[in-house]
Amino acid sequence: MLDHLPKRENKPRQSGVTMVMDKGLGVRQAQDLVETSGHLIDFLKLGFGTSYVSRKVKEKIKIYQDAGIKVYVGGTLLEAFLVRNQFDDYLKYIAALGCDTVEVSDGCFQLASEEKCRIISRLANHYTVLSEVGAKEETVHDPDPGLWISSMKAELDAGSSFVIGEARESGTVGIYEKNGSADMALINAILDNVPAGKIMWEAPLKQQQVWFIRLLGPSVNLGNIAPAEIAPLETLRLGLRGDTFFESLPEELKKRKQ
Amino acid sequence: MLDHLPKRENKPRQSGVTMVMDKGLGVRQAQDLVETSGHLIDFLKLGFGTSYVSRKVKEKIKIYQDAGIKVYVGGTLLEAFLVRNQFDDYLKYIAALGCDTVEVSDGCFQLASEEKCRIISRLANHYTVLSEVGAKEETVHDPDPGLWISSMKAELDAGSSFVIGEARESGTVGIYEKNGSADMALINAILDNVPAGKIMWEAPLKQQQVWFIRLLGPSVNLGNIAPAEIAPLETLRLGLRGDTFFESLPEELKKRKQ
Amino acid sequence: MLDHLPKRENKPRQSGVTMVMDKGLGVRQAQDLVETSGHLIDFLKLGFGTSYVSRKVKEKIKIYQDAGIKVYVGGTLLEAFLVRNQFDDYLKYIAALGCDTVEVSDGCFQLASEEKCRIISRLANHYTVLSEVGAKEETVHDPDPGLWISSMKAELDAGSSFVIGEARESGTVGIYEKNGSADMALINAILDNVPAGKIMWEAPLKQQQVWFIRLLGPSVNLGNIAPAEIAPLETLRLGLRGDTFFESLPEELKKRKQ
Repeated sequence: MLDHLPKRENKPRQSGVTMVMDKGLGVRQAQDLVETSGHLIDFLKLGFGTSYVSRKVKEKIKIYQDAGIKVYVGGTLLEAFLVRNQFDDYLKYIAALGCDTVEVSDGCFQLASEEKCRIISRLANHYTVLSEVGAKEETVHDPDPGLWISSMKAELDAGSSFVIGEARESGTVGIYEKNGSADMALINAILDNVPAGKIMWEAPLKQQQVWFIRLLGPSVNLGNIAPAEIAPLETLRLGLRGDTFFESLPEELKKRKQ
Repeated sequence: MLDHLPKRENKPRQSGVTMVMDKGLGVRQAQDLVETSGHLIDFLKLGFGTSYVSRKVKEKIKIYQDAGIKVYVGGTLLEAFLVRNQFDDYLKYIAALGCDTVEVSDGCFQLASEEKCRIISRLANHYTVLSEVGAKEETVHDPDPGLWISSMKAELDAGSSFVIGEARESGTVGIYEKNGSADMALINAILDNVPAGKIMWEAPLKQQQVWFIRLLGPSVNLGNIAPAEIAPLETLRLGLRGDTFFESLPEELKKRKQ
Repeated sequence: MLDHLPKRENKPRQSGVTMVMDKGLGVRQAQDLVETSGHLIDFLKLGFGTSYVSRKVKEKIKIYQDAGIKVYVGGTLLEAFLVRNQFDDYLKYIAALGCDTVEVSDGCFQLASEEKCRIISRLANHYTVLSEVGAKEETVHDPDPGLWISSMKAELDAGSSFVIGEARESGTVGIYEKNGSADMALINAILDNVPAGKIMWEAPLKQQQVWFIRLLGPSVNLGNIAPAEIAPLETLRLGLRGDTFFESLPEELKKRKQ
């Protein structure tokens, strides 16, 4: 009904992808989420090990998948299997849950790059793979963009559909400084060397979502969005919230603003 | 059962009004909210443009209205229609949703005062009107109380039922400083010139709710309350939470406190 | 399925107890919570006076109790009855709700130690009693550990099942500094003198939960956990989240981490 809104691809889509983090929603909450916002969500992550300690997980996964949302368990859980030398049990675990997607990360249990890529390749035969780059520890704010870039390229080559820039739920590590502000030098270096469409940026805080939409437009891929922030994020993408209202307007309408 | 509680008007009420911000709740969450706290809520705002990007909105509005809650869409959405010269489409949009209330703001798309009042008057023929004063931009912390006062008076004259002191969801602009603390000079100047009963103060943060209840008592009108904070806010009004426990007691009971 | 996870007692349990704060959930939210996380929750507190201002409270209490969760109303509400000299009405109130547990606190209305212990003893005949030590006021950061220790000992002797270290919902008073960090001197002094298994630490913020799990292991008793943080807390206890991933591993697996 509103004219001149920024264009958005419909699902299933390759750009402007949104990934939500579910860290223990109930079945009714999942139903609420897909009914009101299912068309806005592309991926859903059962954050870190919450799928392992919660009940009703299979029921929830079914609800999400029926709404056209790809579902996976947090990469930290894969790492918990890997550090115990239980990769085969991990495969059984996600098969039993009915996941269609996996996340490969090494934020806690560091893997050699070749080993990580071997895991990605193997999983890519059966699953959509997202792989995450960047450590989770706040003390290790690694400013070497070269390492980020080479990892991302190798992991895309190995079969990842998207590479994820780590931020945790808190938004204070990886691609962000401790205060939550974006590490612009790192992000710009990545954007100069890795196709922007293949990167999903974790952006749990509103200021981070606004920052990326201003930098890369409404079709930036964003992740670690809280369930309650899915509809608000879409308004940011479309300029229907104060923070991006003005920059989302076409030039001729901007002039109308006094 | 508890004696000496602060007095509260019953719904529908003119004082001690509470406005909640829904930024994408599901139908079951809305049912939960009205069942447990419907008697505590006077107005419900479908925040900024979330009504435009979500589904099941009409169903939710019906649930709220059946509980005696007045419902409207965020003023930013009206501004998105106005900047596109689509005011008639806005009227169709809110009629189709079944809204009974409107918010007129110019936080993003600035209107001349006469124009804003003309819109208020026109809408007041068919809707309960709330109008909002104050810019959304953090860079424009306008300390000129004269402008706030003249706008509020003109908009009440034009037909607004309440004028709203802007704070956004974050509580860091308008009537608040960047750190969320109240701009006392501005607020006192407003209170000296505008009837307190006609003002609704946006107070998303608990410290702000406490501050206003201490300043103006349990019957202050407060808005932009998160759904999960509705029952907690009522305990603040009644002195059933630590922050206002002592000041809510009658004098003779205060002495009992050691 | 995962080997070498930290051991956890099953419910009903005496150690590793988790207390959640409900400050106004609806019936459906309560159902969601017990279905997904009921096995992770030992106590549920209807925070401060929210049980007094909300509806559907009895229905919710039944849902929680049917899931093996002990339920009580916030200590502030008892204090609101006490300051009005309405203790008998308090007894009627919790009996009508069907509570099985009580919290005795004096964070707002200070009681002499003997009086507080007399109330604990009387209630302990009919209810599980939790008693809370520490003032709610931010201005009263009382660093005298001797007072904390003698109160905790006396209250355990009087019949409390657990003594609670006060933090409020904000996590910025009592056992914490204003910035939310733990008051280590106070906590260490308490641990030197009071059995750790009889203490429940209020730890609403994730950093506080991590801090206590690192200090006292996965079986520390923690309280004031938000409903949405119950599953995440369990992953912290088990080392299935980045923050405690490494320290939760047995020694032989720690070596695998590069």
